[in-house]
Amino acid sequence: MNMLMCSAGRRVELLKDIRNSMNSGSRLIAVDLSEFAPALYMADKYYLVPRIDAPDYIDHILDICRKEQVNVVTTLIDPEIEILAKNRKRFEEIGIEVLAPYEETAALCFDKYKMYKYLTEHGIRTVRTWGSFDETIKAIDDGETNFPVFVKPRRGSGSVGARKIFDKDALKIAFEEDDTLIAQEYMDCVDLDADVYVDTVSHEPVAIFSKHKISTTIGGANKTISFKDDTLFEFIKNALVFFEFNGPIDMDFFCKDGEYYLSEINPRFGGAYLHAYGAGVDFIKLIENNVAGRRNDSIIGNYEEDVVMMMYDSVVIKTAKELATRE
Amino acid sequence: MNMLMCSAGRRVELLKDIRNSMNSGSRLIAVDLSEFAPALYMADKYYLVPRIDAPDYIDHILDICRKEQVNVVTTLIDPEIEILAKNRKRFEEIGIEVLAPYEETAALCFDKYKMYKYLTEHGIRTVRTWGSFDETIKAIDDGETNFPVFVKPRRGSGSVGARKIFDKDALKIAFEEDDTLIAQEYMDCVDLDADVYVDTVSHEPVAIFSKHKISTTIGGANKTISFKDDTLFEFIKNALVFFEFNGPIDMDFFCKDGEYYLSEINPRFGGAYLHAYGAGVDFIKLIENNVAGRRNDSIIGNYEEDVVMMMYDSVVIKTAKELATRE
Repeated sequence: MNMLMCSAGRRVELLKDIRNSMNSGSRLIAVDLSEFAPALYMADKYYLVPRIDAPDYIDHILDICRKEQVNVVTTLIDPEIEILAKNRKRFEEIGIEVLAPYEETAALCFDKYKMYKYLTEHGIRTVRTWGSFDETIKAIDDGETNFPVFVKPRRGSGSVGARKIFDKDALKIAFEEDDTLIAQEYMDCVDLDADVYVDTVSHEPVAIFSKHKISTTIGGANKTISFKDDTLFEFIKNALVFFEFNGPIDMDFFCKDGEYYLSEINPRFGGAYLHAYGAGVDFIKLIENNVAGRRNDSIIGNYEEDVVMMMYDSVVIKTAKELATRE
Repeated sequence: MNMLMCSAGRRVELLKDIRNSMNSGSRLIAVDLSEFAPALYMADKYYLVPRIDAPDYIDHILDICRKEQVNVVTTLIDPEIEILAKNRKRFEEIGIEVLAPYEETAALCFDKYKMYKYLTEHGIRTVRTWGSFDETIKAIDDGETNFPVFVKPRRGSGSVGARKIFDKDALKIAFEEDDTLIAQEYMDCVDLDADVYVDTVSHEPVAIFSKHKISTTIGGANKTISFKDDTLFEFIKNALVFFEFNGPIDMDFFCKDGEYYLSEINPRFGGAYLHAYGAGVDFIKLIENNVAGRRNDSIIGNYEEDVVMMMYDSVVIKTAKELATRE
């Protein structure tokens, strides 16, 4: 199986893990805009490509797919997910599986307000969300919620622009400055996440790996520990019925008073996949099966609890000559 | 040579590099307060120890040194450097080299205002610094500097509390909130740094590796590139005459209108050592020579220019059983 990883960026360890579990006859191809994207250098072959918003971007990617006999393509950055979803047909026409959600689902993932509406319509517990200053103030006046509330850009990625707001004046200013904001109930509770693989043949989740932060005052860095909870697994399976994902996704949750709340879905390999892989949950084997046309049996929960992941900074060193160049 | 690395923390890649260049008969021992310090697991042996401010901390460290026949000890965190410096004698009595500056030099490194006075007294170009609100305002009134100025805690580490201040009122509030602040001329120019090894036998710098950031708008992450400049090397050698360092140090500079300005000295293995090592500058060989009583010949500038370092996040995965426990 030949895999093309778009926008490889700094995901060095992910590419190492993927390469490590691919069959010996398989090849991993990576592309990025910049020769300073260290993950490029972990692949069997790499290319520099135009920006994802260039008109000929997909043409470039399809050329590489043909040249390298690629079987499956995916991306590691949010803005490219909808681009792959929209161009799925062009890839499928030459026999390539696109590990990205289908278009409507992709659109939901990148509009937090639409996602909120969609989840509540389908009875999936999520964080209460308001799309304007007036809506938020009405909710507070009606006693539905209280300050502080949490605001973030409707189409934001990561935690950019996300912050707590403590009073009405500050909320007014925040919405005046950015009318794409949403406000959410502030969840003062445990957050956790799950790496999920949605089978591309059966369209069902076949792997779930869940973990939460280790509460420690020593060092601010990311330290997480695996756990298993059938209630969470069922909650995930029930929620995913209403979406068309395809391949790896990363789901964020809150857990408050014993109930899970779905917070966000990132429809791509999450940063936490390194933890899943280190605990023995190997998505590449699932992808290989899918690419061969086989559906996977469920391996949900097939991992050890209390496996700890500790993050640290590492580096890739290259001489100027060794850096990627455009062809 | 057996080396003890105190407060190993998250410096996983550093410990890997050190282990990698040690002789086959050598051993690397690591200690930390927390079992969630991933670097512990890169050493040949590790111990959990009390907090560095515990009354019996040094006794614990000395016990480990005796048990493991340690020849050389150092630390990776700033607050421990003065502790090692103050206890140098107790280590030397049992034949252990302490890679930390001598006491007076250590004290200077952790008081930015004293350091400024000391550097200017000795004619070493540095960033103009004021120790109070009144001093800063006088400098501005006298036309010596202008807003913005840069303030930071006198004894701070890293960039905690460091920020630009744009006017008199804000400066007044800043000094009222924290009277340990210093104010510095804002240097709107290139910053760069050097990893330096000060020989413990000859007391002279014998290795210098310098690098600066790569200016790229693609990705905010740390990307640096090596360079060589005899003017910088001479500036470093001249400055170090006035200090008593011992082993690896990391020096920060500004370069403005073609002149170097010494900004700070961190008297320990810097984060940039990974870059130096990747470019072939190996401090461990120098330490091995010193521990054997031999002085090193200078290898200043013995590396390639344009070697690029690209940072990324990596992880260490351990099951609960595999985590360190206290004896």
